[in-house]
Amino acid sequence: MLENLEKTQRIIKVAANSRTHAVAGAIAGTIREHRCADVQAIGAGAVNQAVKAIAIARNYLIGDGLDIVCGPELSEIDADGQRLTAIRFRLETRI
Amino acid sequence: MLENLEKTQRIIKVAANSRTHAVAGAIAGTIREHRCADVQAIGAGAVNQAVKAIAIARNYLIGDGLDIVCGPELSEIDADGQRLTAIRFRLETRI
Repeated sequence: MLENLEKTQRIIKVAANSRTHAVAGAIAGTIREHRCADVQAIGAGAVNQAVKAIAIARNYLIGDGLDIVCGPELSEIDADGQRLTAIRFRLETRI
Repeated sequence: MLENLEKTQRIIKVAANSRTHAVAGAIAGTIREHRCADVQAIGAGAVNQAVKAIAIARNYLIGDGLDIVCGPELSEIDADGQRLTAIRFRLETRI
């Protein structure tokens, strides 16, 4: 239960109007703490912001000696009864 | 020289109107042969198609026992004298 709660807290949701540097900061903070993070985006504008934020976060984390890679997945989600296809980026530190 | 040529051939350029399954097939083929590939996209629509194609290619490659991860980078490119920011996804097989 606690583990699921922690996992939920690591999902960073990105919108088309999210500021890339703010999202990048959230990603970098989560990676520093947990060594992994999930970023979710729905729609082309949101996916674009998410990818830019991940690229910026990679630069933020160089100073910590951390390199992140992501495995994007298509994920069906339910938003107010509507089925939507989200992109889920599973970020983890490179071993 | 030959190495540079080979590297150029591995850059898969994605546009907003690229068909995701066709791009996914190109990614999977390149990964099977070289174990790495570069995917480049400019603009939100193209980035979205690229990410979806990478997610689909990951499914294609499960049968080959291969899992790919990507490290997105912001990359400045020159297109007909215009400076544009491209997203470059460096794909590699997970060790």
